[in-house]
Amino acid sequence: MVLEALVRYGAFSGSDDQVLGDLTLFVALLCGCIVIGHLLEESQWINLSITALIIGLCTGGIILLTTKGKSSRLLEFDEQLFFIYVIPPIIFNAGFQVKKKHFFRNLGTIMLFGVLGTLISFGIISFGAVELLGKLDTGFLELRDYLAIGAIFSATDSVCTLQVLNQDETPLLYSLVFGEGVVNDATSVVLFNAIQKFDLSNINSRVALSFTGNFLYLFAASTVLGVLVGLLSAYIIKKMYNGRNSTNCDVALMILMAYLSYVMAELFDLSGILTVFLCGIVMSHYTWHNVTDDSKVTTRHAFATMSFIAETFIFLYVGMDALDIEKWRFVSHSPGKSVAVSSVVFALVLVGRACFVIPLSMLSNFWTSKHDKISFKHMVTIWWAGLMRGAVSMALAYNQFMKSGHSQVMGNALMITSTIAIVLFSTMVFGLLTKPLIRYLIPPSQHFNSMSSSEFSFALPLLSGIEDDVPRIRSLTVLLKRPAQAIMYFWSTFDDAFMRRVFGGRESMLDTTRK
Amino acid sequence: MVLEALVRYGAFSGSDDQVLGDLTLFVALLCGCIVIGHLLEESQWINLSITALIIGLCTGGIILLTTKGKSSRLLEFDEQLFFIYVIPPIIFNAGFQVKKKHFFRNLGTIMLFGVLGTLISFGIISFGAVELLGKLDTGFLELRDYLAIGAIFSATDSVCTLQVLNQDETPLLYSLVFGEGVVNDATSVVLFNAIQKFDLSNINSRVALSFTGNFLYLFAASTVLGVLVGLLSAYIIKKMYNGRNSTNCDVALMILMAYLSYVMAELFDLSGILTVFLCGIVMSHYTWHNVTDDSKVTTRHAFATMSFIAETFIFLYVGMDALDIEKWRFVSHSPGKSVAVSSVVFALVLVGRACFVIPLSMLSNFWTSKHDKISFKHMVTIWWAGLMRGAVSMALAYNQFMKSGHSQVMGNALMITSTIAIVLFSTMVFGLLTKPLIRYLIPPSQHFNSMSSSEFSFALPLLSGIEDDVPRIRSLTVLLKRPAQAIMYFWSTFDDAFMRRVFGGRESMLDTTRK
Repeated sequence: MVLEALVRYGAFSGSDDQVLGDLTLFVALLCGCIVIGHLLEESQWINLSITALIIGLCTGGIILLTTKGKSSRLLEFDEQLFFIYVIPPIIFNAGFQVKKKHFFRNLGTIMLFGVLGTLISFGIISFGAVELLGKLDTGFLELRDYLAIGAIFSATDSVCTLQVLNQDETPLLYSLVFGEGVVNDATSVVLFNAIQKFDLSNINSRVALSFTGNFLYLFAASTVLGVLVGLLSAYIIKKMYNGRNSTNCDVALMILMAYLSYVMAELFDLSGILTVFLCGIVMSHYTWHNVTDDSKVTTRHAFATMSFIAETFIFLYVGMDALDIEKWRFVSHSPGKSVAVSSVVFALVLVGRACFVIPLSMLSNFWTSKHDKISFKHMVTIWWAGLMRGAVSMALAYNQFMKSGHSQVMGNALMITSTIAIVLFSTMVFGLLTKPLIRYLIPPSQHFNSMSSSEFSFALPLLSGIEDDVPRIRSLTVLLKRPAQAIMYFWSTFDDAFMRRVFGGRESMLDTTRK
Repeated sequence: MVLEALVRYGAFSGSDDQVLGDLTLFVALLCGCIVIGHLLEESQWINLSITALIIGLCTGGIILLTTKGKSSRLLEFDEQLFFIYVIPPIIFNAGFQVKKKHFFRNLGTIMLFGVLGTLISFGIISFGAVELLGKLDTGFLELRDYLAIGAIFSATDSVCTLQVLNQDETPLLYSLVFGEGVVNDATSVVLFNAIQKFDLSNINSRVALSFTGNFLYLFAASTVLGVLVGLLSAYIIKKMYNGRNSTNCDVALMILMAYLSYVMAELFDLSGILTVFLCGIVMSHYTWHNVTDDSKVTTRHAFATMSFIAETFIFLYVGMDALDIEKWRFVSHSPGKSVAVSSVVFALVLVGRACFVIPLSMLSNFWTSKHDKISFKHMVTIWWAGLMRGAVSMALAYNQFMKSGHSQVMGNALMITSTIAIVLFSTMVFGLLTKPLIRYLIPPSQHFNSMSSSEFSFALPLLSGIEDDVPRIRSLTVLLKRPAQAIMYFWSTFDDAFMRRVFGGRESMLDTTRK
């Protein structure tokens, strides 16, 4: 059906050359971004996202000049297309490359930040939007729109900070920022979907309860689906492998099944982001160990490359799209109002994030071991890491405010331009400040200095198991005192005794140490 | 613009779930094809193309039953989409994985078969179609249509035979069949484009000359573009590489620049197939040697996987499309005519191929050394290898006979259904006979028996240079006697002295032997 659209389009527009020309220029720009981004990588300030944004802005400007103000874009941004093709590789790769040891070790804190934190942030931004934006005469915005604004601006983009943090120097901090980033994406998208589905015209306790139930159902069902598809892939590849070279099959099956998990989740109205993330984790824990050595290298890098291209694509596009003249036409009548809306929303983002990072960090410190306590400097880093707004916010904003093409309406145009302004401002200004700030807060030790800060995910063996540091649980006292670690222990015993025998996986560390 | 189509489509149809459902089912079917194809791989008869075709036919049948005869397809086949997304990875991978040593060694013969042979086949099929189909009352077909039929059915699909041939046992035969296959694709597409562009209503010597000139220009310009983009990628990656880990950048740049060469060629109305094939060869000869070891493994397998998925996609689609009811409606009034047309065209294919394989093989034997002579059994194998018709024929037929949606016209419907019938028949019947026939003609030696016949392209170090077997040219006599090898020698000297110093590449064999 997607393809059919192309046929029809091809039939009634007939300008094949236009399509090809745009595609050519876009691919050439992507190449340019990668080369320039790579050359600038050494610098203290710039990263690939910022490079792509700037190149996008410049190209947009040039197109705007050559088309005499008609258009600034090569390709039209579509939220659906974006969620169908561009987001899945990024999130899947995040799951596939996650350092499971640290991720699961800090799972409690990560979920606290990613779920509860995002909900707090959502609440504060929505409430603030209702209170403050209502007074600004922003045109026709319903309660649903204000709630959507809360969800849109709760979706963080922590890529910038992750590029600066060193996974080996500050493993706790890295895993918290990384883990929160992914869980946060999932939470905000699930929230956004839940908001769109419910009739929010008259809120009562029944609606609120049903909303909460729906949210929890989406979370649980998405998780189960992702894990099941991941396990299925492990089982199939384990059974299929018969000693012969089958790299193509392995890699193709892993890509296709990961994608299958995503589209299935979307089809069942679940959160594809959460599903494909968990599918990635399961695949790296089981499936990855069942394939040939060549497949291991290939999958690791091929998935990272797909994610890399998709991210560059997004920032390049957002840069180009920012100059689209039509969106700014409405706003140009009242530039002051536009600036006010953007400032208010961004202030709400800053406050909303501070309101949950500090209390939740303290809460987390309360129950974790001394080794895993979050220092004040780390709290500031976590707060900062989640201030940037990126692709997910952009996509959700398009979905909410441009869906039926009514960017003509004042309120919608205002919200789209404010989103663009906040994404550009936070990514560029805050992005540029990130490196110096983090270097100031957490001075790098000499030892690790020589290590490349980009390509962080490949720095050290990343697909290690989760049980390396699981303590020996010998008494009931320990179990009661540290429930999280006890669960970890029981899980890893079960993993060894059953899961890995059925689905394959790395030779167990416990087995080795037990001998 | 492609994306814009999706937006618009999304806007006026609004059935996101339909898109997702189709996509989910299609991805699931692709997974199924790969698993079943892998399981059946051991068999003497079946290969992945046939598996995908059969699964496609079965799914088409089921959809036809469930929709009560309305549709048999999940996704609408579009020739443009097909050429923009599906063909490039297949052809690029063919260029990238080609055993350059054998390919260049037999370049003369390959070009003879691929260019002259395809032209002869085109001439015979076109002439036969004018003479024979004209008498069958096939509805309104112009001269242009008959010429297009010639080009459509000159495009061979030798994948089936290549899966059976062993690259190490019969290197000459393998490289001839493989090389002819690719050059043939390029030639038939260039021919097809040339036919569509020219006003053929009144042919005179001026039009014929201009047609020939255009054909040669397309060939030369496409070659130059592919080589230039390939060299540019080698140069950029060589300059960029500064000892740090940059696998993502390397792989992303190679993929994007290969694709860039393709879309640029299409944009300039050249042959993208030829361009991207040459870009693949140049990239494997220069660029591939400039990247990290991980990138080498990743690119080799990632490109093969993309090609693998694309091929499976095509056959699955053609299988499903074959049952599309609308196309058969017209033909059902006169089934005899449809069978007659298909039989006549396929007979022309058989004759047309025989008419050039045998004479050109003899011609080639006339000038090549004793070692490279083509035996009669090999001639039969080459003839057989080019009898199957596949994806390219299908795509060209759609382009010619369904472009403005007028499959309602008798002649057009007849030609589409005949193409489907010939593709199905040749791929399934001839495909199934291929393995026994080749095994009978060229009995495999015991020595190689254990080797997997699939994944042929990874069997042995495949990215070796071309100069290993270049004879030392010490006297003018040798040079005059064997001009092809002399050119080879001068080229490899130039390659060592200049090209590899600038663009990178494998340590020269000549350098080593000279020491």
